[in-house]
Amino acid sequence: MKVSETGEFMLINLIRDLILKNNKFHGMVDNKLFTGIGDDCAVWRSSGNLQLSTTDSMVQDVHFNLNYTSWNDLGYKSIAINLSDIAAMGGVPQYAFISLAINPGTEVEHILDLYKGMIKISNKYGVLIAGGNISSADKLSIHVTVHGYSKLKTVLTRSSAKPGDKIAVTGYTGLSAAGLTLLKKNLKTRKNNSSIFINAHLRPEPRINEGQLLLDCGVKTAIDISDGLLADLGHICEASNVSATIEEPLLPVYPALKNAFKYNYLNLLLGGGEDYELLLTADNKVMKKVKTSLSCPVTIIGEIIKRGKTPVKISGININDTILKTPGWDHFK
Amino acid sequence: MKVSETGEFMLINLIRDLILKNNKFHGMVDNKLFTGIGDDCAVWRSSGNLQLSTTDSMVQDVHFNLNYTSWNDLGYKSIAINLSDIAAMGGVPQYAFISLAINPGTEVEHILDLYKGMIKISNKYGVLIAGGNISSADKLSIHVTVHGYSKLKTVLTRSSAKPGDKIAVTGYTGLSAAGLTLLKKNLKTRKNNSSIFINAHLRPEPRINEGQLLLDCGVKTAIDISDGLLADLGHICEASNVSATIEEPLLPVYPALKNAFKYNYLNLLLGGGEDYELLLTADNKVMKKVKTSLSCPVTIIGEIIKRGKTPVKISGININDTILKTPGWDHFK
Repeated sequence: MKVSETGEFMLINLIRDLILKNNKFHGMVDNKLFTGIGDDCAVWRSSGNLQLSTTDSMVQDVHFNLNYTSWNDLGYKSIAINLSDIAAMGGVPQYAFISLAINPGTEVEHILDLYKGMIKISNKYGVLIAGGNISSADKLSIHVTVHGYSKLKTVLTRSSAKPGDKIAVTGYTGLSAAGLTLLKKNLKTRKNNSSIFINAHLRPEPRINEGQLLLDCGVKTAIDISDGLLADLGHICEASNVSATIEEPLLPVYPALKNAFKYNYLNLLLGGGEDYELLLTADNKVMKKVKTSLSCPVTIIGEIIKRGKTPVKISGININDTILKTPGWDHFK
Repeated sequence: MKVSETGEFMLINLIRDLILKNNKFHGMVDNKLFTGIGDDCAVWRSSGNLQLSTTDSMVQDVHFNLNYTSWNDLGYKSIAINLSDIAAMGGVPQYAFISLAINPGTEVEHILDLYKGMIKISNKYGVLIAGGNISSADKLSIHVTVHGYSKLKTVLTRSSAKPGDKIAVTGYTGLSAAGLTLLKKNLKTRKNNSSIFINAHLRPEPRINEGQLLLDCGVKTAIDISDGLLADLGHICEASNVSATIEEPLLPVYPALKNAFKYNYLNLLLGGGEDYELLLTADNKVMKKVKTSLSCPVTIIGEIIKRGKTPVKISGININDTILKTPGWDHFK
C-alpha cells in the first residue's frame, strides 16, 4: 500500500508502533524519557555534564541512489552518520529525531523498512528514537538530529591540536569510496572482496565506543572522517590554527583496497569520504595509552606542526596535485 | 553569486559569520554553550529540570511557494513553527539546529536572507542557532530541530485532559488559512485587511511566553494549533482518551475574518491550520487564573467529556460535514 493511501496520521501510527515494539530502550525502567513520540516535543530528564547535539541528512540522488541502496541500509546509515559525530566528540548518544520528506507514491512497507534499519542501529548503540516529523516531497530526504551527553566534563574538539602532537587514524580509510565506485559502475572486484567495500559504504559503523575511550585516555582533539582523511585533517588544522605533515609510508593501507584499486588506492584512502573512522591528535604519552586501550587498529600517520602556508603536507608521495588541492566532498562544486 | 560558485565550505563560513555577528546570544558571558558551529556537535552545559526537543520542516511547493514567500519570512517561519512546539509544552527554547537542502543554483544572498529571518526570531525568543548541516537538492527544504528546557518539574502534554475540563484557545484562529487563500489566488480583501491574514500565514508568532504562563498557572494539557483547531482538539482527545464538545456561539471570531470570508469563515476558523495559537484544557479554577495571567485573549469554547463515539462534537452549528470528517492537514491525502 502506498503512503498516499494510508495518509499521514495512519503512517505515523504504524511507525510509532514499530518503534515502541522494537526500539528496545522505550519503556525501560531506568529510562529518563518523560514523553516520547506523540506529543509536541520529546521530554527527558537531563543527564551527564555536557549535552551534545548534531544534525546530518541524506538526500535522494545526492547522498544515495535507491537503485543500489536498500531502505533498511538507508535507515541504518542515516543514524550512523549522526552517531559518528557524537563519537567524534567522545559522547554517549541518547535520542534521535527523524525529519522525513517522502514521495506520496512510496510504498508504506519501504518506509517501515527504513525505520527497521534505524531501529537496528539504535538498539546497537543505546539510542532511543524519541520524535520526528513527516512531510511530502518529490524526492526522499532524511534529516536526523541526535542528542547525547558526555560522561566527563569535557569533549573531543577539532580546535585543540598542538604542534608536536602525533596524528593517528582508527581502522582503514578509502573502503567506503571504493564501495561507492563499485556500486556506481555496477562492478565487482575479483576474489569476492566487493562486499567489504560495499558494506563499508552502505552500512558504516560509528566509532562510539572508541570515541569515549579516546576521551578517557586524555585525547583532546578528534574529528570523524566524513569528508575524507585529508579534508578532515584540514578541518582540524583550520580550527586549531596549525599545519600537519603526513608520512606516506605510515598510511594504513587495507590490503584488499590496494589489490582491487592498484592505481588509485591512495586517492581513495586520502580523498574518499564517508569512512566514519576517527582522526585524532595527541602527544606521545597519550597516544601510547590510546594504542593499548582501543581494540581496533590505531595508526600514527604524521605530526602536527606550527601553522605554515599549506595546512596539510604529505612527504614521500607522488600524488596527483588535484587531490591535495580539492580534497573531500563539496556538495555544490 | 550562486551557491554553486561559492561552494559548500565558503557558504558555511558566510552563514557562520552572519550568525556569530547577529545572533545576539552567541558569546554572551552567561552563555552555557561550550562549542557551537564549526565542530562535529554543539555542546552545552545542561540546565533546567526537563530537556525538550522538537523537529519540524518546511519543503518547497509543499509548505511554501517562493513566488509569494520571501526568504526572510521563510527563515522566520521555519523557526517559529518549532518554537510553537516548545510553547505547547510550556518550555523555554534554547538552541536551534538547521538542516538545509538547497539547489546549487540558489543565490547566496537568498540563503543569507533566510538566515537573517531565522536570526530575527531567534533574537526575539532567546534562541541560539548552534549548529546545522547543508546539502544539495533540487528543491529547497528546511528541517529545524529546537532544543529547550522546562523551568518547572513538569510540562504541558496532550494526554492529561480530563472530563469536566474547560477547553480554551488563545487569540484567534483561521487567519493563517485566510492568508494562504489570498496568497494562492493573488487576491486582496477590501478595507486593506489582507496584510493581517498574510502576515499571520507568512510570519506567525509562537506563544512562548503564554506557554510558560500556562504551566505556572497549573495547566496540564495543551497543544499548538498547527493542523487546525478541530484536528488538534482531536489529537488531545485521542491522547487523553476523552471526547470534547464545542459550543459554536463561544468560538472567537476575528471580525475581519468574518467580513472577508462571509461564507466560509467557520471552515477557516475550525479547519485551517498553521495558526500556532495554543489550545488548552483545565478545570474552572485554573482557567480563571489563566484568564487573568495571559495578556492575549483566552476564550473558553467548550468542555471535555467522557470518551464517546465521536472525539469532537460541535453543538449549535450547521457545518459542512466534510470539515468534521477530515479536519486539518494531511500531507499525503
